[in-house]
Amino acid sequence: MTKRRSRKRKRKTKPPGLPPGTLVVDPESPPPVIHAIAYDADNIVEMAITEPETLTELMTRWPVTWINVNGLGDVAMVERLGQVFGLHRLALEDILNVTQRAKLEEYAGGYFIIAHMIRLPEHLATEQISLFVGRNFVLTFQETAGDCLDGVRDRLRHARGRVRGEGADYLAYVILDSVTDNYFPVVETFAERLDTLEEAVFTARENDIVERIHEIKTELQHLRRQLFPQQQVLSMLAKDELQLIRPETRLFFRDVQDHTVQAIELIDSHRETATGLVDAYLSMVSRKMNDVMKVLTIIATIFIPLSFIAGLYGMNFDTNRSPWNMPELRWTFGYPFALGLMASVAAGLIFFFRRRGWIGNGRRNG
Amino acid sequence: MTKRRSRKRKRKTKPPGLPPGTLVVDPESPPPVIHAIAYDADNIVEMAITEPETLTELMTRWPVTWINVNGLGDVAMVERLGQVFGLHRLALEDILNVTQRAKLEEYAGGYFIIAHMIRLPEHLATEQISLFVGRNFVLTFQETAGDCLDGVRDRLRHARGRVRGEGADYLAYVILDSVTDNYFPVVETFAERLDTLEEAVFTARENDIVERIHEIKTELQHLRRQLFPQQQVLSMLAKDELQLIRPETRLFFRDVQDHTVQAIELIDSHRETATGLVDAYLSMVSRKMNDVMKVLTIIATIFIPLSFIAGLYGMNFDTNRSPWNMPELRWTFGYPFALGLMASVAAGLIFFFRRRGWIGNGRRNG
Amino acid sequence: MTKRRSRKRKRKTKPPGLPPGTLVVDPESPPPVIHAIAYDADNIVEMAITEPETLTELMTRWPVTWINVNGLGDVAMVERLGQVFGLHRLALEDILNVTQRAKLEEYAGGYFIIAHMIRLPEHLATEQISLFVGRNFVLTFQETAGDCLDGVRDRLRHARGRVRGEGADYLAYVILDSVTDNYFPVVETFAERLDTLEEAVFTARENDIVERIHEIKTELQHLRRQLFPQQQVLSMLAKDELQLIRPETRLFFRDVQDHTVQAIELIDSHRETATGLVDAYLSMVSRKMNDVMKVLTIIATIFIPLSFIAGLYGMNFDTNRSPWNMPELRWTFGYPFALGLMASVAAGLIFFFRRRGWIGNGRRNG
Amino acid sequence: MTKRRSRKRKRKTKPPGLPPGTLVVDPESPPPVIHAIAYDADNIVEMAITEPETLTELMTRWPVTWINVNGLGDVAMVERLGQVFGLHRLALEDILNVTQRAKLEEYAGGYFIIAHMIRLPEHLATEQISLFVGRNFVLTFQETAGDCLDGVRDRLRHARGRVRGEGADYLAYVILDSVTDNYFPVVETFAERLDTLEEAVFTARENDIVERIHEIKTELQHLRRQLFPQQQVLSMLAKDELQLIRPETRLFFRDVQDHTVQAIELIDSHRETATGLVDAYLSMVSRKMNDVMKVLTIIATIFIPLSFIAGLYGMNFDTNRSPWNMPELRWTFGYPFALGLMASVAAGLIFFFRRRGWIGNGRRNG
Amino acid sequence: MTKRRSRKRKRKTKPPGLPPGTLVVDPESPPPVIHAIAYDADNIVEMAITEPETLTELMTRWPVTWINVNGLGDVAMVERLGQVFGLHRLALEDILNVTQRAKLEEYAGGYFIIAHMIRLPEHLATEQISLFVGRNFVLTFQETAGDCLDGVRDRLRHARGRVRGEGADYLAYVILDSVTDNYFPVVETFAERLDTLEEAVFTARENDIVERIHEIKTELQHLRRQLFPQQQVLSMLAKDELQLIRPETRLFFRDVQDHTVQAIELIDSHRETATGLVDAYLSMVSRKMNDVMKVLTIIATIFIPLSFIAGLYGMNFDTNRSPWNMPELRWTFGYPFALGLMASVAAGLIFFFRRRGWIGNGRRNG
Repeated sequence: MTKRRSRKRKRKTKPPGLPPGTLVVDPESPPPVIHAIAYDADNIVEMAITEPETLTELMTRWPVTWINVNGLGDVAMVERLGQVFGLHRLALEDILNVTQRAKLEEYAGGYFIIAHMIRLPEHLATEQISLFVGRNFVLTFQETAGDCLDGVRDRLRHARGRVRGEGADYLAYVILDSVTDNYFPVVETFAERLDTLEEAVFTARENDIVERIHEIKTELQHLRRQLFPQQQVLSMLAKDELQLIRPETRLFFRDVQDHTVQAIELIDSHRETATGLVDAYLSMVSRKMNDVMKVLTIIATIFIPLSFIAGLYGMNFDTNRSPWNMPELRWTFGYPFALGLMASVAAGLIFFFRRRGWIGNGRRNG
Repeated sequence: MTKRRSRKRKRKTKPPGLPPGTLVVDPESPPPVIHAIAYDADNIVEMAITEPETLTELMTRWPVTWINVNGLGDVAMVERLGQVFGLHRLALEDILNVTQRAKLEEYAGGYFIIAHMIRLPEHLATEQISLFVGRNFVLTFQETAGDCLDGVRDRLRHARGRVRGEGADYLAYVILDSVTDNYFPVVETFAERLDTLEEAVFTARENDIVERIHEIKTELQHLRRQLFPQQQVLSMLAKDELQLIRPETRLFFRDVQDHTVQAIELIDSHRETATGLVDAYLSMVSRKMNDVMKVLTIIATIFIPLSFIAGLYGMNFDTNRSPWNMPELRWTFGYPFALGLMASVAAGLIFFFRRRGWIGNGRRNG
Repeated sequence: MTKRRSRKRKRKTKPPGLPPGTLVVDPESPPPVIHAIAYDADNIVEMAITEPETLTELMTRWPVTWINVNGLGDVAMVERLGQVFGLHRLALEDILNVTQRAKLEEYAGGYFIIAHMIRLPEHLATEQISLFVGRNFVLTFQETAGDCLDGVRDRLRHARGRVRGEGADYLAYVILDSVTDNYFPVVETFAERLDTLEEAVFTARENDIVERIHEIKTELQHLRRQLFPQQQVLSMLAKDELQLIRPETRLFFRDVQDHTVQAIELIDSHRETATGLVDAYLSMVSRKMNDVMKVLTIIATIFIPLSFIAGLYGMNFDTNRSPWNMPELRWTFGYPFALGLMASVAAGLIFFFRRRGWIGNGRRNG
Repeated sequence: MTKRRSRKRKRKTKPPGLPPGTLVVDPESPPPVIHAIAYDADNIVEMAITEPETLTELMTRWPVTWINVNGLGDVAMVERLGQVFGLHRLALEDILNVTQRAKLEEYAGGYFIIAHMIRLPEHLATEQISLFVGRNFVLTFQETAGDCLDGVRDRLRHARGRVRGEGADYLAYVILDSVTDNYFPVVETFAERLDTLEEAVFTARENDIVERIHEIKTELQHLRRQLFPQQQVLSMLAKDELQLIRPETRLFFRDVQDHTVQAIELIDSHRETATGLVDAYLSMVSRKMNDVMKVLTIIATIFIPLSFIAGLYGMNFDTNRSPWNMPELRWTFGYPFALGLMASVAAGLIFFFRRRGWIGNGRRNG
Repeated sequence: MTKRRSRKRKRKTKPPGLPPGTLVVDPESPPPVIHAIAYDADNIVEMAITEPETLTELMTRWPVTWINVNGLGDVAMVERLGQVFGLHRLALEDILNVTQRAKLEEYAGGYFIIAHMIRLPEHLATEQISLFVGRNFVLTFQETAGDCLDGVRDRLRHARGRVRGEGADYLAYVILDSVTDNYFPVVETFAERLDTLEEAVFTARENDIVERIHEIKTELQHLRRQLFPQQQVLSMLAKDELQLIRPETRLFFRDVQDHTVQAIELIDSHRETATGLVDAYLSMVSRKMNDVMKVLTIIATIFIPLSFIAGLYGMNFDTNRSPWNMPELRWTFGYPFALGLMASVAAGLIFFFRRRGWIGNGRRNG
């Protein structure tokens, strides 16, 4: 179940007692694969990088270089990258410890940004992406290969959109825009799941509704907690006077921030709907139970006195011994009298129930 | 059902992976129909526009021009309009992607405003309206033909109110005022629906109350989410020192903002009422069930021992075989004894129930 | 019912589609009756006004004039008053549309204030009062005759308190103080109603408790929504550097604001109490039901097996046909055996219930 | 009950319609008893005061004078004190109207502070204390004799702590510190009451749990509402640059504020616990009811068909008339057949219940 | 139980009525054991201190000295330490009164910080740690021996991390980082407990679920209340321009603050999950009860009329006396007629239940 997995991930925190800045690697993390794309408005080169130190030379030749690292399983390689780009060791620690909140830190040489991305559309599994945005480069770290940034790469390669003519700040925008856009299909699956559940609630046809709503609420809560600081990061990029972000790019970050706010509002709306569904379900269950109880009550209450009368005349008192012993049994119309008595009792009870509004209009009464 | 439709609409977001600023058109959107009204205090002209480029000339001749576009089904036309008015491509994207939050963006040349309007009074279906307010023009984009702005047009044509003598900022005010006023009849229908439901809850006469309250709450939540950012936009128009809004018009925007706040407060009040109704309904159901249970308990509990006694003397032990076998059956007053025994048991139980306060004053006890 | 009426009032909003500033009169509103009181420290005159234009001359002769208008049923008269005092047409619209939130608007010539007053002590019906406070006058508009300001008039007439020696700002304070003070008796009736309900809940003696709590909560919510913006208006009068309010009068407005905050806090406290009462009532109902169920269970569960045994020996299998057919019926101690079997079963069940803690200490167990 | 009393007190507000600043005395309030303590680092005098005017002379002779007034039953005396110390008539009104929120007002000549104190430790009854803190005096008004300030007086008399060497601001601190410290024993009684209730909830041994939790919540709500503005007053004393409060004393006020925050947090924690207990209790009740129901269901459901079979063979159809009439009664193994049929039905039902998980492991299933 | 203990601890507050600044010692507190570590980049000395006055000399010789005090059981010793380091007596009072909120106070000579630490990983018991951070020393007070700072000591001794080359501000950071990191294992145990409970809720296998969730919620609430002010302290260290904290160390404090925020968010998430579990459990219980009731209803409702019929023909009316008395008993097909009547009634009821959706698809219906 998605929920369980996502909560498990949260737990892989640094063991306490280690010196701060100690780089700890998740042993299941794959080894880093480094890939660089360097471009200007006219040309673009792509290459696999094995020696991080060669990047320095590349970056001097091109106006914008995007270095992407897939996999965090090699501390030494991450440290070498850190040295090449002058990354603070707290930033390196955050890159490796993939349970950080989204944040933006201003370091000498650039901005260090942590965000979370949905790895595959329509799937809740999320992954931490760390960006280090400098004057002429964007360095991204991802946990594993496979991401939502292939569209960005395509646009760079085929010079679609205006990304090729812009700077590193615009590339950071394009990456974060892509990350944000990928939340929407996932948020929409919740709308669909809630629609299905809503139907199920009001027809009361399923048994595990509470379990499923609980799961949805936990997942939405997880998503919201992830997106909220991300929105704050984007707000800082859009509003704060960060030196490396050009004023015209700020407008674009504001647009991404708007989308994040929209995603958060959708999530909040889904959460409210989910809460409403729990209430609706509980009241459905309680009304159904009431219906069941009413039928039991009516049938039981009518027949219990009748059965008593039948039982009464089933007693074996010896009518021969004494005229006091059940003389009714010897009456000519004893049986009709007994049946009549029963009918009167039943009619009286039905009248009582009707007056109370429990039968006769049973369909309409809650 | 309105709710379902409105939630569906929310989902038509841009597919992820497209370059930012890519204009995507909802294939069901009708082709744009452009209509221009240009006026000064004395004269007014109206015309259908097919070539957006002709607007430039029109706008130089008249102090205020209102260009309205119904339908967003033609990207090329929207882009041509964008070029004529110098609209930023992010604004164009927002115009076409009709699930935006209300917002105000300041661009060179004017303010870009997104708001939502109720398409028809007494109906929840809402529609995005995008305004681009410049020094001497207001450009509005609507999803479909048919809107709540006919009153504005009438006033322009017949020079009612003082709109004809004012500038483009006042025209924007009049449009937004009209948009806001149309929320009130819709909000009022909720008051009526809640009144009906309240009656239904306390007479407990309907069966689908929870479903209907859930629907109302979802719709109110939707309306509130739509109006809240709209109120913020109006607040910016009323308070921020926006250059194109004259100080005397700011007062009017403040008035519209006041109305929006009032609508939001009414919505919040309705939501609280709806939540209260759910609680009231649940407690009604549970009290009714209690009533039902009490009747069952009293009748069952009284008759169960009586039936047992009757059953006892219905046993067929052979009284001839042994004086130990049911000698009561041969007593002279065996039957009266049995009846007396039953009466005593019943009286004892009734006394017990009375002491517990379950009967005798059954009408008044909860 | 008060609640219904108050909600109905909320609905009399301006029909959408009218030009802003259009003055619309509620057809049920009585025609305006204008009454003026002018005074200085030594003298006071009162007069009925039919021609608003005569007020100008009056106001030049006296340091402070209070013009009160009862009834809003004549647009022309209101407009004439507007012209005399230079009222903005948005203010005129607010005066006539009596469902405004409390607010303070600064216009040239004075402050336009909307507040709500309780018409009669101990009664929830509220009425909008609009004040226009100028340098040397206070103009008040009320929906109908009869208000809580007779005390103010008495004090003016008999020169009680220091109001006669102060300016128009102090008169505005005295009026708003009177309006605020009248909320307290109403708020106190809620405390009494809640005390009564609390008693009813814990003795569970009434049937319509949920309905009554729901009504109280709706009314408190209505009061709170009315008082909250009023408190903001008073805060503006106490804190903002408004030119026409002298610093020494600000202290008095702060006092009224304090009282309003106190009233709001009492209301909030009553709302919390009401919510707590609903929970308490529901748990009372559910505990009572549990009690009822337990008695049913115990009696039913004990007698059901006994009745079965009685039924068993009531079967008519022919003991003559076969020694296998109910030989117990012919035993010498068959009947005592059956009675003993029943007693054992009953004792076993009672032991089981005791061990579960369901009987024997039934009074103390929840 | 404490709660009722405290709510009653809240109601003794000024009757509406009186001129502002009118001093109204609670007729039950005892007559004022004035007691003055004047001291410097070396000497201390205490005296009863009957003529307030004599205080002026006293205050000129000593660096710090503490004048305490117990009882508010004499308007004239309070007014005379007001004249001696130059108290604003709004302050006088607040002193007499003992239902004020805590507040700090800056008047010429000093700070007017309203706080609330617990009259006796371990008892909820609270009392308003008004302080007027001047350059060289502290004037305190209490509703009745008997307070939590005897410790302060002792320290002054025996020169304990450093209060004797400090100014009037420090005396005000010591008084407010004493007032705040007295809240803790009361707050702790709630912890004990909640512990007792928690035990009662989970053993479900008491009957009036909901009533008692409701009472605790109401009292905690009352305490919180009282302490919250008090904390704001202390924050003003600690942070605002009030001229008569020396910077070194500000540190002490900050300490009292910290304690008040701590008390508020404890109260909030107790409120959350109380709310949690209601939920826990309700679920306990509902689980217990479920248990009861299950036993009823199992026993009833097993015996109902058995009794039916017994009833069937208790019918009196005449087996002599027709071979179709109950031939089983004449079978050799009719009775064993009937018993076998019953045993099979019972076994089948028990199997069904086991498969549903309702019996066999009844202890462990919810 | 952890919860009870932690709440008990909260109560050991100073008895009211004592002069402020009075040092009160918890009689159970162990006597202080003072241990000093002094170091520079190259050397380190450790020593037990018995005479605090000797510390002055030590501190002049080394750039950084860490003095740790375990146990608060000796007022005189604490006061002597206070004199050596110039600690304000309010700080001394806070050190001894171990129920303080986390706080940071700026005194001459350094910053006084109160924080709380988890004493042992995986265990909720917390302990107050007070830090006094000066230019060249850190003075820490702990309630008892045994803490989470052994890692810090090890790093100092073996010169791991860069702590040895840094100042007292960095040492304070390392200590607070260690304190914060120790919260995570504890927070994670809650995730595990909630996972276990979630499983238990949806299989409904345990009986004390509500009790356990209540316990978890109380503990989480306690943790959150402890961490929240701690996060504010760290924010002050990271953001405020505190003179003794070098700008490069601020970055590290910000990192600890981030971790604290993360811990708080995890706690909030766990609290929401716990609340959700209560709701889920209650609805599980109510659904299960509904299931039980339905089976009872169906079986009872079907057999009650059948038993009545059987009882009817078990009556002993004398068929010889009158042809009206139970002629059915003498019919040739009387018994089959009775069985047929029963079968029809049963079939009718089953049909009714099916139509209502109560049987036939019993597995799937809620």
